[in-house]
Amino acid sequence: MTTTSDTTIGHLINGKIVQDAERSQPVYNPSTGEISKQVGLASKATVEEAIATAQAAYPAWRQTPPLKRARVMFRFKQLLEENADKICAMIGEEHGKIAHDAMGELQRGIENVEFACGIPELLKGEYSKNVGPNIDSWSEFQPLGVVAGITPFNFPAMVPMWMFPLAIACGNTFVLKPSERDPSSTLYIAQLLQEAGLPEGVLNVVNGDKTAVDTLLTDKRIKAVSFVGSTPIAEYIYATANANGKRCQALGGAKNHAIVMPDADMDNAVNQLLGAAFGSSGERCMALSVAVAVGDQAADALVSKLQEAMKPLKVGAFSDQSNDFGPVITAQHRDKVVGYISSSEKDGATVVVDGREPQVAGYDNGFFVGATLIDRVTPEMVSYKEEIFGPVLQVVRVNTMEEAMQLINDHEYGNGTCIFTRDGEAARYFSDMIEVGMVGINVPLPVPVAYHSFGGWKRSLFGDLHAYGPDGVRFYTKRKTITQRWPSSGVREGVSFAFPS
Amino acid sequence: MTTTSDTTIGHLINGKIVQDAERSQPVYNPSTGEISKQVGLASKATVEEAIATAQAAYPAWRQTPPLKRARVMFRFKQLLEENADKICAMIGEEHGKIAHDAMGELQRGIENVEFACGIPELLKGEYSKNVGPNIDSWSEFQPLGVVAGITPFNFPAMVPMWMFPLAIACGNTFVLKPSERDPSSTLYIAQLLQEAGLPEGVLNVVNGDKTAVDTLLTDKRIKAVSFVGSTPIAEYIYATANANGKRCQALGGAKNHAIVMPDADMDNAVNQLLGAAFGSSGERCMALSVAVAVGDQAADALVSKLQEAMKPLKVGAFSDQSNDFGPVITAQHRDKVVGYISSSEKDGATVVVDGREPQVAGYDNGFFVGATLIDRVTPEMVSYKEEIFGPVLQVVRVNTMEEAMQLINDHEYGNGTCIFTRDGEAARYFSDMIEVGMVGINVPLPVPVAYHSFGGWKRSLFGDLHAYGPDGVRFYTKRKTITQRWPSSGVREGVSFAFPS
Amino acid sequence: MTTTSDTTIGHLINGKIVQDAERSQPVYNPSTGEISKQVGLASKATVEEAIATAQAAYPAWRQTPPLKRARVMFRFKQLLEENADKICAMIGEEHGKIAHDAMGELQRGIENVEFACGIPELLKGEYSKNVGPNIDSWSEFQPLGVVAGITPFNFPAMVPMWMFPLAIACGNTFVLKPSERDPSSTLYIAQLLQEAGLPEGVLNVVNGDKTAVDTLLTDKRIKAVSFVGSTPIAEYIYATANANGKRCQALGGAKNHAIVMPDADMDNAVNQLLGAAFGSSGERCMALSVAVAVGDQAADALVSKLQEAMKPLKVGAFSDQSNDFGPVITAQHRDKVVGYISSSEKDGATVVVDGREPQVAGYDNGFFVGATLIDRVTPEMVSYKEEIFGPVLQVVRVNTMEEAMQLINDHEYGNGTCIFTRDGEAARYFSDMIEVGMVGINVPLPVPVAYHSFGGWKRSLFGDLHAYGPDGVRFYTKRKTITQRWPSSGVREGVSFAFPS
Amino acid sequence: MTTTSDTTIGHLINGKIVQDAERSQPVYNPSTGEISKQVGLASKATVEEAIATAQAAYPAWRQTPPLKRARVMFRFKQLLEENADKICAMIGEEHGKIAHDAMGELQRGIENVEFACGIPELLKGEYSKNVGPNIDSWSEFQPLGVVAGITPFNFPAMVPMWMFPLAIACGNTFVLKPSERDPSSTLYIAQLLQEAGLPEGVLNVVNGDKTAVDTLLTDKRIKAVSFVGSTPIAEYIYATANANGKRCQALGGAKNHAIVMPDADMDNAVNQLLGAAFGSSGERCMALSVAVAVGDQAADALVSKLQEAMKPLKVGAFSDQSNDFGPVITAQHRDKVVGYISSSEKDGATVVVDGREPQVAGYDNGFFVGATLIDRVTPEMVSYKEEIFGPVLQVVRVNTMEEAMQLINDHEYGNGTCIFTRDGEAARYFSDMIEVGMVGINVPLPVPVAYHSFGGWKRSLFGDLHAYGPDGVRFYTKRKTITQRWPSSGVREGVSFAFPS
Repeated sequence: MTTTSDTTIGHLINGKIVQDAERSQPVYNPSTGEISKQVGLASKATVEEAIATAQAAYPAWRQTPPLKRARVMFRFKQLLEENADKICAMIGEEHGKIAHDAMGELQRGIENVEFACGIPELLKGEYSKNVGPNIDSWSEFQPLGVVAGITPFNFPAMVPMWMFPLAIACGNTFVLKPSERDPSSTLYIAQLLQEAGLPEGVLNVVNGDKTAVDTLLTDKRIKAVSFVGSTPIAEYIYATANANGKRCQALGGAKNHAIVMPDADMDNAVNQLLGAAFGSSGERCMALSVAVAVGDQAADALVSKLQEAMKPLKVGAFSDQSNDFGPVITAQHRDKVVGYISSSEKDGATVVVDGREPQVAGYDNGFFVGATLIDRVTPEMVSYKEEIFGPVLQVVRVNTMEEAMQLINDHEYGNGTCIFTRDGEAARYFSDMIEVGMVGINVPLPVPVAYHSFGGWKRSLFGDLHAYGPDGVRFYTKRKTITQRWPSSGVREGVSFAFPS
Repeated sequence: MTTTSDTTIGHLINGKIVQDAERSQPVYNPSTGEISKQVGLASKATVEEAIATAQAAYPAWRQTPPLKRARVMFRFKQLLEENADKICAMIGEEHGKIAHDAMGELQRGIENVEFACGIPELLKGEYSKNVGPNIDSWSEFQPLGVVAGITPFNFPAMVPMWMFPLAIACGNTFVLKPSERDPSSTLYIAQLLQEAGLPEGVLNVVNGDKTAVDTLLTDKRIKAVSFVGSTPIAEYIYATANANGKRCQALGGAKNHAIVMPDADMDNAVNQLLGAAFGSSGERCMALSVAVAVGDQAADALVSKLQEAMKPLKVGAFSDQSNDFGPVITAQHRDKVVGYISSSEKDGATVVVDGREPQVAGYDNGFFVGATLIDRVTPEMVSYKEEIFGPVLQVVRVNTMEEAMQLINDHEYGNGTCIFTRDGEAARYFSDMIEVGMVGINVPLPVPVAYHSFGGWKRSLFGDLHAYGPDGVRFYTKRKTITQRWPSSGVREGVSFAFPS
Repeated sequence: MTTTSDTTIGHLINGKIVQDAERSQPVYNPSTGEISKQVGLASKATVEEAIATAQAAYPAWRQTPPLKRARVMFRFKQLLEENADKICAMIGEEHGKIAHDAMGELQRGIENVEFACGIPELLKGEYSKNVGPNIDSWSEFQPLGVVAGITPFNFPAMVPMWMFPLAIACGNTFVLKPSERDPSSTLYIAQLLQEAGLPEGVLNVVNGDKTAVDTLLTDKRIKAVSFVGSTPIAEYIYATANANGKRCQALGGAKNHAIVMPDADMDNAVNQLLGAAFGSSGERCMALSVAVAVGDQAADALVSKLQEAMKPLKVGAFSDQSNDFGPVITAQHRDKVVGYISSSEKDGATVVVDGREPQVAGYDNGFFVGATLIDRVTPEMVSYKEEIFGPVLQVVRVNTMEEAMQLINDHEYGNGTCIFTRDGEAARYFSDMIEVGMVGINVPLPVPVAYHSFGGWKRSLFGDLHAYGPDGVRFYTKRKTITQRWPSSGVREGVSFAFPS
Repeated sequence: MTTTSDTTIGHLINGKIVQDAERSQPVYNPSTGEISKQVGLASKATVEEAIATAQAAYPAWRQTPPLKRARVMFRFKQLLEENADKICAMIGEEHGKIAHDAMGELQRGIENVEFACGIPELLKGEYSKNVGPNIDSWSEFQPLGVVAGITPFNFPAMVPMWMFPLAIACGNTFVLKPSERDPSSTLYIAQLLQEAGLPEGVLNVVNGDKTAVDTLLTDKRIKAVSFVGSTPIAEYIYATANANGKRCQALGGAKNHAIVMPDADMDNAVNQLLGAAFGSSGERCMALSVAVAVGDQAADALVSKLQEAMKPLKVGAFSDQSNDFGPVITAQHRDKVVGYISSSEKDGATVVVDGREPQVAGYDNGFFVGATLIDRVTPEMVSYKEEIFGPVLQVVRVNTMEEAMQLINDHEYGNGTCIFTRDGEAARYFSDMIEVGMVGINVPLPVPVAYHSFGGWKRSLFGDLHAYGPDGVRFYTKRKTITQRWPSSGVREGVSFAFPS
């Protein structure tokens, strides 16, 4: 383990762990509610040092053939797999995720490393012979230079791995600022990449707060910023990065609806919804937080089956594999989630299953919220308009599929959505016309696999290109187009041969 | 002809020419210096009407199969070719371009229409079978909705055709605000697309000034903005569009250098430089405005050969095909260009060929500047740092190729560049390491063909994606990723067959 | 018109119509049963002359930039559209197709010309920077040289246009041997391409029989052969071409089944089946000739609805637009089709609608067969095993979808197939597991659009690559991979500059 | 080690080593000339058992998601790296390659495994929305079934890994028949893939002779055959496989020329030629066996520098890392190579460096030939026309580059070629016009990296598609195109909702 509870978690700069002791903040174990460690908050100078080291490492790394860069990723994948349990334990302690869930997250992160292993193929440019007589032209995708990632607490392993493996495989060097809430697993993963053979300085990690973020956003050596977090921050990041001449993709909040059609296989839908709504305590930007039932018959069946299915759900500490999901990240966040439930109730919705006061024996101070089901939610309610980010599933009742789709298209966010149906035409119409970036047909968490790309529409993503996958390659490279004509050759025509000096 | 000198040039909204008479401004014939027409300046309400009509036309156009959309482009190409002379005359009268140059511009515009004819192929998404057991996933590229283009005076036919044919072929509807300096050819071209069978409202043209621009930038129905112009405006457009939730690509200024290596075929280089520096009076963002000679021997040869070669160059009115280039766009711009020449001289450079007082018989009031060659320019001079946008070629002398490349990499702009050499290694090193988006090897104007993409680096382009070509397709579409699993089928397994109602 | 009834149809060689008068054979009007013209049958020498002219035209055409080659295709498309009625009349007279059907065929041919217009994009190679340190590698797709096409009577316009536009756009030159049964439209289309600006000798047409075919197959200047016809001939063509060192794709016969599921929209299915089974008298390799009904209930409904729907179907002469379909190609072929109907009956099937003795007033000698529906066909019947190629729809009854699929997978041919269902899972399972190259979901004639590729599986196609579309580009080009490293540059490092001779 | 000198090398069938004792043949250690082992020669029944097991394993493997199939390849790569020394020792003992050379071969094989790890990306199909109104179409690339590989002695590790990793990653199952001369490393590698988690029966290895080959070529369960060997056998394989309804790519012989231009960096060229001509004793299909010097001045310099540079070259046993290359594969082959040298001499060429009687102390019975340089070879000589496949470099002298290129274009083979020059135009002209599939610019062994494809032209390859890389994916899959339309949905429109049963 890199860190112990009595040390302060540092930064990874130029291949070494660096302490920047001026400022720090506690890291909690949300299952117990206790402080487990301190994390150093990087000063401007420390962040600038990280940038400088990335800048210094860039020229050599850029010239390293993609095949060699890929081979570092192959070894990285292997080390991630060998150390999976250790990583999951770190995630559990600081984030609260149950090990099975942490393992799922890690696996999705590894998928992105696997994708990055294919970088020689992915970087192929386009070659055109004879764009004019004896003139050829081709486009290359060159790395940007030093790029930065700013990542959220909810996926401390996966979301950073959406970014740095691909960015680095593309030939960039990287400065990562992970969440200060659960920094250990991220730092450890970065050390594994170092161990895999990455040259020092190519990946640097700085823990920190707004000081670190703003340094990254304004330093002109940073060429691009990838961000995942809430929409207001995403908007700030995007605007600031752009104003400072940087390329940016900033992913924000979500409110993901599932339409349950009358012809759906209802048992299957209920089963799928459970994991999608309550997994990871709903602290996922792809969490399915609203079920839109078409017709009261479907709604009644859905609610009653959900209520029954939720009974065995178990919330508890990360260390017990039999738990279904763990605490939320902080006490403040727990209160906020509980507040949304109460506000729903006050606004006239029916709290069918109430998780506001969960009993978790032996973990009285943990930040727990139980699985909650709220029926008869309406679009005007604040709890509908905003992202709850907790283990709360809201049910909205509508009369027609068109009405259900309108609801989704009118919402501020457009991250993920899903329809449950058996009908080919309904599915096709839905996937075509819905204003959402990631669409599931009977798939409640339609997170694209690593070789497709992740991205919401509307105010769920700021930027032109989606995260990871093919769009990620495009984001982390810039196009250069070369047009070439050779003047008539003395050498070929024998001139220089016939009259050598 | 759509317009005559006594009428005011209007707007194309919903397939009809609309007059918005409140405000107008004169359009000059720069060859004579006289006002030839008036152009209406659209009010906010008129622009909003254009947006509304584009919005109304969107749903049907989006659903029109790409093959059908392409067929409108096929007919458009044909009409552009049939009316080429008329278009070139319009360009000549208002912009000042000689017909051969206008024809070249138009041809490059038509190339982009040809590319758009291939939209069924270009819109293909990525399909993955079995991303999980019996789960399939695919990515589609869907249109954005209503998009806008804001285009400069220097290519009234070509630059708009970088934008709207592809945007429209992708399924978007369009509002174009062309330059108010030379609006006639652009408007006429738009009418030809209408004639080609485009449904009314899919393409709308509003002439105007900052009022029109700001309306486009802030109206929330506009989903994306493409801009070509100067860097300060590009930066404003980009920031404002982004702040208003729009996708944007904004192309700005340039200072394009050619390195002339000692082994270059000097006669060929001189020949190429002439057209690249003085064609279209240097009013091109890809104009070659700086020649960097490596070694004094190469520099001396280059300057003396250029001086000789410039003697027969003829500046004059657009209507005389024997002229090499025409006037600049306005009297103010002429004064600005002349100012840069004088400033070079004052700063210590040598004006080898002086075009400040050209004689153009019969066109005393035209906005002419003659071809100008300035030797011994240095990087500190204002005339080197800024874009002159006139028929002025500056020569900078350096001792090594590295020095030449450093000069280019240090410049604010990174649009185009070129090297003249016979040597494979020098060319490869240059194209690899130069911080410029469009690179020529013995090609002085490396404008990518329509099936590649156009874009500078550094402060020559704001945005992630280049203009037209494959990047254009990506810019005018958004990615949607669908993940699909079908629940076990009663139909297939005979259940519903065995127990029909 | 190129030909009149009293002349002999010649060959197009080097841009001119050439007569090779030694041997000829009659061309019939199948609506009247009368001979309308003679067609010359090329001797070996004439075919060799065509090959020689194509060989001579190759070097210049290969070097013509793809963009210029594409522009010939743009003009060709325009000429095809302008002369569509004339082409359709030619097809009708010699093939018997009703004008609406001929127009459909022509349109599909034009689609392939449109696809070929995109050749600059389609020919892009793959470019890799730094496959090793300072070593780059790229793949180009170069043309093959002279290639040949051998095409069948049933689509005299479309099938040749699957081949030569794309082959020629790729930079090849072409010798086409169309069907000698209906050669006029093909020859005329070739002349239009000439008129569109194709250099002489790039496309040559030879009419002929086995002499011509064998000359093409054995002449070593021919680098590739595309063939469409029956399976035994396809197999001969493929083996002979391969043995003579040629690339070959040879498309053969078909027996296309539609599965009608119990949940299908039966009225829709019936409606679709009519056109798919009887259009063009069933003389299509994609004709839907077997309906497999799952369950007797579906079978009974299907047969009774088909019987009803077939009542208004009208067979007759090509010249009457109100006819649904026309005669078959020859008297012999009529007898063969009638023989299959009788054989079905003899083998125990039920002829529900009998077209063996159609009455076509005023056309007593035309080669007509009426629309025929045969129920209770079984897999052992000869009429099931073989391709009928006439207006005959057979119904096979099965109990389960698995049984229906097994039937299809066991058949010798695997060209096209279709399922009628509303169920997503059934459709997905079918399209995944069926051993057929072109699959329709509620689409009875799943002919891929021009930007996909056409090809059956099993004994319906010999070769690795499908026809037209992306596979067509790959078929008509060969890959060349170049790996490049430049030795250290005296020029760049100043050596040759410092010490010039 | 799988095998010891006293056992007979068996076959890998269904995950187990199987002995088929009826027939066997000796395996030599070519460094000592002694028999080291016996290899079993599979009977028809044994090969059919391997095919049957592959057939049985196919359905489940086909359905395994590509991501899972890729993960087996990730583990396989790791095992290959961990066991590299062992594999190289096996190669050395049976083939005679020095360890550094064997390691290079293995590395190239591993590259192909790395490429196969990217199969989820590589298998993406093409998706088109709205090919018609509400009709979508997409193309999938489905596996073929059971496919076979037949591989040569000269790369017992690499060439099999050109084939089975990619074929298997595509979803096929495989029967490999490696060379019976050096079977141990191949068999061991196959066992490693098993150990990596490949399900039993997916990869099977049969050792054998013509009996095994012919069984593979004629068994109808085999869907495709990949072959690498000599041209006469390649031609037989191709014809036989095709006649039996199989897809086939058969790679044959080569005669690879390097043009040395007068402007070449001569020391660099000489240095490159040494390894390319004599590495692996010239037993490579990409060996550079002919240097074409342009001009006597270049020729004289080349020959004298080569003669000097060849002095320290050391031929000897595989076990001594200081040796440059080892023995040839058999005594018969040694005699054949020596015969070609003598025949050159008899035909009038000059044997400048003579390797016919090399002294290898302690290895008197090894099959050694020393590095040989022959000047003044002419195109009429048998030793020029045929592939020598030994450590022999021939020099041909010509006067012009055109003459050099004509020589290459006239040769039967067109596998690889190279030019040494500094001149951009000469390189471009050469790479464009040379009739050879793999071209080097100052790269003497232009073997494409694994993410491009390997293939010669003319009689060096029979088939449409090249080996490995993108063409390999295409070869091991077949295209299926699906066109889908859903009939109007009762579910969506509320019909079935409004009127439930």
